Amino acid sequence: MPGSRDAVIDLLGALSYAQLSGFEALAAHAQMTPHLTAKMAFARMAVQMFSRCEQVALRLEGFGVPYADAMAPFVTAIDNFHTRTAPSDWLEGILKAYVGDGIVRDFYTEMAGRLDPDNRDFIVGLLGRVGEPDYILHTLHEAIAADQRVAGRLALWARRIMGETLQQTQSVAAERDSLVALLIGGEAGSGITETGVMLGRLTDAHTARMHRLGLSA
Amino acid sequence: MPGSRDAVIDLLGALSYAQLSGFEALAAHAQMTPHLTAKMAFARMAVQMFSRCEQVALRLEGFGVPYADAMAPFVTAIDNFHTRTAPSDWLEGILKAYVGDGIVRDFYTEMAGRLDPDNRDFIVGLLGRVGEPDYILHTLHEAIAADQRVAGRLALWARRIMGETLQQTQSVAAERDSLVALLIGGEAGSGITETGVMLGRLTDAHTARMHRLGLSA
Repeated sequence: MPGSRDAVIDLLGALSYAQLSGFEALAAHAQMTPHLTAKMAFARMAVQMFSRCEQVALRLEGFGVPYADAMAPFVTAIDNFHTRTAPSDWLEGILKAYVGDGIVRDFYTEMAGRLDPDNRDFIVGLLGRVGEPDYILHTLHEAIAADQRVAGRLALWARRIMGETLQQTQSVAAERDSLVALLIGGEAGSGITETGVMLGRLTDAHTARMHRLGLSA
Repeated sequence: MPGSRDAVIDLLGALSYAQLSGFEALAAHAQMTPHLTAKMAFARMAVQMFSRCEQVALRLEGFGVPYADAMAPFVTAIDNFHTRTAPSDWLEGILKAYVGDGIVRDFYTEMAGRLDPDNRDFIVGLLGRVGEPDYILHTLHEAIAADQRVAGRLALWARRIMGETLQQTQSVAAERDSLVALLIGGEAGSGITETGVMLGRLTDAHTARMHRLGLSA
């Protein structure tokens, strides 16, 4: 049972604003670091996020829905997320980008799996195109190797981002009946169980990402 | 007498950092406005600036110069400019983008005219590709029409940006002997006079831009 048209519009609206605010956050991280190579890396990631946002906005317009209308219901929840996860330095900013974007991509990919093939393929393609950002891994590895206390601080920070991101994605879904239906209506009758299984998959993927960084999840 | 290799590297270094910090400033403006259409417009301008930055960085690397080395001498002067011209709302942010980018483009285009044809064409092409940003003009026209006090405030603000930008471009040039030579050595012997004429052209172009906005310069 693929999601309704409302669910498609809502999911695209939430996704596009998540990417737009991700663009803003990454650009703000660029401003937090004096290192020119890091600035450039943040800016490149920000541009990539905005490109996703533009592609979703175009698709919404193609459906006859102004992108601003589709984004609007999700602004508060997503802005609150960024307020609660403002990094205190650019290293926390990098980790937030890595952890947060990873979970957000997994979440929307999961939700897209409940849509019709055309919309599913669009979202999966959009979010899948980005490779593992070498610069992030390299920089975090270096910082952690240089100072073991940094590893402890960043592991705590990643846990906080993980919790806040899961809460954000759920509160985004809770904004709209269509998304609640999409979230808990995955398999006929399976409802809450299915959601629990999905959260488990998101957590597993997060744990794997943490291990690639050499951090405990 | 085209500029020396040092002048080319320095000009590209200054230009690339000006565009990188312009990207950061525009993204920060996006964050200042709650209007989704304005956010998207700022983000698009920011991406355009960063694309210029990337093109210059690539060219520097092609010359065997790491972009961070070429940018570094100009970071303080350009950062100071942004500190002194932090807008108090997004309308001031839009106007700063319009006025500041206009002057910066005119300045680098003038300086590029003193380089060899290959480097000149690169810079002129890079900065010329952007059209008059309709969104900026439309938004400012609307805001000014709606409230005459806004027109007064924005006219003052534009004058301040104009002054600060001229000072910034000159202090960027003053950082490096190669650029001072490029600036005052335009025509053999004409020196300071030539610089005065150039500043006159920058001011005239600024005045024309202000008129297009319906603001006094």
